[in-house]
Amino acid sequence: MRAFASDNYAGVHPEVLAAIVAANDDHAVAYGADPVTAKAIAAVRGQFGDHAEVGFVFNGTGANVVGLQLMLRPWEHVVCAATAHIAVDEGGAPERLIGTKLVDLVTPDGKLTPEAVRAVHTGVGDEHRTQPRVVSITQSTELGTLYTPAEIQALAGTAHELGMYLHLDGARLANAAASLGVSLRQTSTDCGVDVLSFGGTKNGILAGEAVVVLRPELAPALPYVRKQFMQLASKGRFVAAQFLALLSDDLWQRNALHANAMAARLHDAVQDVPGVTVTRPRQANAVFAVVPAAAVEPLQAVSPFYVWDPATGEVRWMCSWDTTQQDVDTFAAAVREIAPRYAERAEPSELSELSRSDLR
Amino acid sequence: MRAFASDNYAGVHPEVLAAIVAANDDHAVAYGADPVTAKAIAAVRGQFGDHAEVGFVFNGTGANVVGLQLMLRPWEHVVCAATAHIAVDEGGAPERLIGTKLVDLVTPDGKLTPEAVRAVHTGVGDEHRTQPRVVSITQSTELGTLYTPAEIQALAGTAHELGMYLHLDGARLANAAASLGVSLRQTSTDCGVDVLSFGGTKNGILAGEAVVVLRPELAPALPYVRKQFMQLASKGRFVAAQFLALLSDDLWQRNALHANAMAARLHDAVQDVPGVTVTRPRQANAVFAVVPAAAVEPLQAVSPFYVWDPATGEVRWMCSWDTTQQDVDTFAAAVREIAPRYAERAEPSELSELSRSDLR
Amino acid sequence: MRAFASDNYAGVHPEVLAAIVAANDDHAVAYGADPVTAKAIAAVRGQFGDHAEVGFVFNGTGANVVGLQLMLRPWEHVVCAATAHIAVDEGGAPERLIGTKLVDLVTPDGKLTPEAVRAVHTGVGDEHRTQPRVVSITQSTELGTLYTPAEIQALAGTAHELGMYLHLDGARLANAAASLGVSLRQTSTDCGVDVLSFGGTKNGILAGEAVVVLRPELAPALPYVRKQFMQLASKGRFVAAQFLALLSDDLWQRNALHANAMAARLHDAVQDVPGVTVTRPRQANAVFAVVPAAAVEPLQAVSPFYVWDPATGEVRWMCSWDTTQQDVDTFAAAVREIAPRYAERAEPSELSELSRSDLR
Amino acid sequence: MRAFASDNYAGVHPEVLAAIVAANDDHAVAYGADPVTAKAIAAVRGQFGDHAEVGFVFNGTGANVVGLQLMLRPWEHVVCAATAHIAVDEGGAPERLIGTKLVDLVTPDGKLTPEAVRAVHTGVGDEHRTQPRVVSITQSTELGTLYTPAEIQALAGTAHELGMYLHLDGARLANAAASLGVSLRQTSTDCGVDVLSFGGTKNGILAGEAVVVLRPELAPALPYVRKQFMQLASKGRFVAAQFLALLSDDLWQRNALHANAMAARLHDAVQDVPGVTVTRPRQANAVFAVVPAAAVEPLQAVSPFYVWDPATGEVRWMCSWDTTQQDVDTFAAAVREIAPRYAERAEPSELSELSRSDLR
Repeated sequence: MRAFASDNYAGVHPEVLAAIVAANDDHAVAYGADPVTAKAIAAVRGQFGDHAEVGFVFNGTGANVVGLQLMLRPWEHVVCAATAHIAVDEGGAPERLIGTKLVDLVTPDGKLTPEAVRAVHTGVGDEHRTQPRVVSITQSTELGTLYTPAEIQALAGTAHELGMYLHLDGARLANAAASLGVSLRQTSTDCGVDVLSFGGTKNGILAGEAVVVLRPELAPALPYVRKQFMQLASKGRFVAAQFLALLSDDLWQRNALHANAMAARLHDAVQDVPGVTVTRPRQANAVFAVVPAAAVEPLQAVSPFYVWDPATGEVRWMCSWDTTQQDVDTFAAAVREIAPRYAERAEPSELSELSRSDLR
Repeated sequence: MRAFASDNYAGVHPEVLAAIVAANDDHAVAYGADPVTAKAIAAVRGQFGDHAEVGFVFNGTGANVVGLQLMLRPWEHVVCAATAHIAVDEGGAPERLIGTKLVDLVTPDGKLTPEAVRAVHTGVGDEHRTQPRVVSITQSTELGTLYTPAEIQALAGTAHELGMYLHLDGARLANAAASLGVSLRQTSTDCGVDVLSFGGTKNGILAGEAVVVLRPELAPALPYVRKQFMQLASKGRFVAAQFLALLSDDLWQRNALHANAMAARLHDAVQDVPGVTVTRPRQANAVFAVVPAAAVEPLQAVSPFYVWDPATGEVRWMCSWDTTQQDVDTFAAAVREIAPRYAERAEPSELSELSRSDLR
Repeated sequence: MRAFASDNYAGVHPEVLAAIVAANDDHAVAYGADPVTAKAIAAVRGQFGDHAEVGFVFNGTGANVVGLQLMLRPWEHVVCAATAHIAVDEGGAPERLIGTKLVDLVTPDGKLTPEAVRAVHTGVGDEHRTQPRVVSITQSTELGTLYTPAEIQALAGTAHELGMYLHLDGARLANAAASLGVSLRQTSTDCGVDVLSFGGTKNGILAGEAVVVLRPELAPALPYVRKQFMQLASKGRFVAAQFLALLSDDLWQRNALHANAMAARLHDAVQDVPGVTVTRPRQANAVFAVVPAAAVEPLQAVSPFYVWDPATGEVRWMCSWDTTQQDVDTFAAAVREIAPRYAERAEPSELSELSRSDLR
Repeated sequence: MRAFASDNYAGVHPEVLAAIVAANDDHAVAYGADPVTAKAIAAVRGQFGDHAEVGFVFNGTGANVVGLQLMLRPWEHVVCAATAHIAVDEGGAPERLIGTKLVDLVTPDGKLTPEAVRAVHTGVGDEHRTQPRVVSITQSTELGTLYTPAEIQALAGTAHELGMYLHLDGARLANAAASLGVSLRQTSTDCGVDVLSFGGTKNGILAGEAVVVLRPELAPALPYVRKQFMQLASKGRFVAAQFLALLSDDLWQRNALHANAMAARLHDAVQDVPGVTVTRPRQANAVFAVVPAAAVEPLQAVSPFYVWDPATGEVRWMCSWDTTQQDVDTFAAAVREIAPRYAERAEPSELSELSRSDLR
């Protein structure tokens, strides 16, 4: 199978797998008190800053919920985009596990703005209202768009001015940084982000994300929250080894640049096909488009992908570290062949109602 | 002080107070196993149906959160209007105590529709999404508007068709029924409501609301949920006695009709005053209007009221069971005198930013 | 009915009722921003100290859970006696609402000691363990016993030395202080208590307790926690008025002294009756005894009371502010008549298995 | 390093690692809808029964908390041993995430009995009490002891008779079955267990546990609970592949038999050493003993291990699938050399107070 469904349909990069194999040597202290983990933490600090506190976790939801918990008291809320993974695709974990309200804002591009944050900064000091404490953004966003470092900086400035923290869901931070041509810290630490999830799984590792805490006062709670939220691996060296590989020889960047390039190639190949309307700027590793409803199933037979929005017929094509030029070219050819056939005849009722079980 | 701020600025109706005094006789079994509570439950059943299970609680948030908990498993969500009390004014209790997500929809009038409920009925069966289980409406709404019985019936039909329950926040159900000229059950039980909060506090009692469960299968959990959510009064007879009074000699209706009439009188007296724009249909005991920003403080000095929306300058004037004709006339005269003075000169920046600590 | 079941079988003291009636005058700002509440807070401060932050709530569970929440982060636990109301009779509210673990210790007399607290002070700094943060005691205890001020002081010293807070469930603090012949603050503030529940309901008011926060750094969260935990009364003046009455003319003390005296009278009248074994020192307003199993039902027919422990046949007789000498004498006469009849023939299997739905 | 600290100090069995590598082929549907997961589920069903519903998760705490959540309503509690991993070593996750109370019973051997379960079966139907719903046992226990199948069957019978479920924490179920000489299902499904955690991590895999649901009515909630509790791996094939390897060619049994044999060898070699007192029957892969306090540090320098109970000086030596005979012989020789030196001079105050950060 060659899919454009999600970057977690891809497997594990050989360098990461080799690192896992190499870590499988002798006994090691459990729960992250081992030398591999120490090295991996140092490597993450090398990217985000020496003051970063780092906790490896199992998955993206785990990273986000652990990170958010560090910043929130029970009566405080999170402001996010209505398309945010935390709001849509985490099974209600933030509400259930933290108990927090998510104030989710409809946006045209999946991005928050200082103005939007200010507009919902109401009820402060009113005990009947939950209190604003965290602004959470996703980089790259769930719609494949990017914040510029200046935009993140502006959001951090607004958040801090309002007594809030800035959280960044970086499940695809690597794709964002690679696309922007900046380092990881230039689109996070240097912009004033307070806590972030640094994603590995969608960028070529087997399983693992890192919670990166950039505010020292928030760090002491990290071990307790991670354990209580069931995100502490007992054989921690094997998660750490993957991050070590990802941060060695710029593997994170190589993988991300490749995935982005494949998405660009796909975008360019399909953008002017009759019946296909690209709906979002292609800025990282995803292409969003509306295609004729009747074309969805035949195209999915070529390469699986998700219907992003059944109401509009928008689909998402996601590229990964292992997407090949041939994958793209084969699929693009199918699009060029199939989409125009149905371009004039599309009816919403024919829409294939595939469940979108993954938004990342 | 004579206020139009909220119907909970009013005190206790003399008949209710007399009932409290009368209940203060001898010892009584605690926690609701007393004869007064038995009679009050029978009285509530007399209104809503013999199959109703009834639990008295302390306040409106308690009634809503207890009632919602009965219907929800941890991964299920509630669909409500963005203006719903549960979404805005309960300090995040639903998210925190139940752990549920509220899917809150922007509406023009504080009312949900079957179409709106269907539009967000997505992701069913997808483990990444919280699952829709409850539609929650408020009658009368937080904007002072009413659902007709037919509208509630349509919502119940939709909810049930979708495998959902219909919850009704009836903090002001009495005002609604009185205004519609129907019985309490005609705007709840008979429309297919599954669980409701029947409010007392805003209609002349000291403190108390009733959770009314109209689905027998949901009733067994009520005692446990009420106790765990800290809404079980030890001297239960005194809450029950209040409801007994409220449901005797149609006191609930007399109080509600009066409050509604006072709101109508106020509405009629101010609706054509220059500078005053009534913003919502006056259907129960509230009048919403935009007045010149500079007029807010002088008017509040006459009678306190809330600025409902600081962004638009909309204010709310709420009448209660004890609002007098003279209260209305005095205040209306002030509006007629003060508002026109500022009618042409209003600037948003002058807006008095009073905190709105009560939306009911 | 004249019962020895619980002090919440009693009604409302006339002075309290009069205060409620008096407060029912005109409109008042809701949610506690009214002059009566201001006076009542001042009165509570008069008892516990000017630095006290005071929040009135609805019931004892509410007071305890709100107070505990102020001190706890999600991964921290509470050390308490296995008989503590929070551990046994709050429907799991602390675990459910706060998410905290209760480390409950078996004790002979319902009282914690510094040694017991130290013995479970393990796992500190270990992320796999919940972290000790609060010691919670009850004064007078659920077994009717008392801590001396020196004992509380020693516990506070230990708690503070260990980086913990001392919480006091004072549902019957008045009975304790009255029995010890000290002021309320001499058995709380002056001993180093950090947060306490000051009970009113069991001492003659209709409904209400006060959360008293004696650590300024914990106070800012109180309004938010109280609201979110659904313990904020909208017509706050009526709860406050009750406390104002309770703290006027030493009503708290008069009521407590009376209840204690009635328990002493009962104790003295039954302690040497054949078949009756008093099981706990009578120190406040409760008498605990083992009576012949077959005597339980006949005695309950005279005056209802709880079987405290079905396994041992221990019963609890609780006196209240309105227990009369005649109540005591009538019941004591029944004990003296009935218990000896079954003294030799008791068999555990005959034990009446009444549910003990109230431990206070 | 060669350690006797925990079986999660060991690495990954080569056959498991080979299976991970083999699974790294092409794209696969994410979140467990892939062919490898399907095969692994079939393999787990082959062990526990065709009616089993299976959900792979990340770690042992995750497996236990997901499994328990399936059985519990918010006001229900779990009865377990005071030494249970859920009670002691899960960072309070059950209380925090499920909101449940754990009624933890002191036992001599880490094992519950029907009598103990019945003894705390009180307060049923009393809304003031949490309600008993789950009995949770660990096989092998945290003290290295075993339940016989007949003992588990008796507990299941008691639980079911009382309207409760039986949960089994099988983090080391393989060690138990291997030691008992029975199949996995003979010590779980066939005994009436309702939900269990089937452990992989401590028996040679990299990371993964399986929630096995043996009651069909509990199964539908599994996907939602697993996702909400952040235990759903996106690249699910890699967790599944490990279980497939573990259940192929009886690897689970080979690993377990080996670990058990090494523990037996160690036990036999040290049991009569002066100064060493074996404290628990050696029934699976752990040896518990009291050694002279002054001997702890020198012995840990040879091979790390945990001080199990700082109060008594009891230590735990845990063997794993990769413990070698030489590991055992080297360490046993050290024990025989070092322990007798301090045998007469041990004083509790010299005790090395190592934190026990892992109880499995």
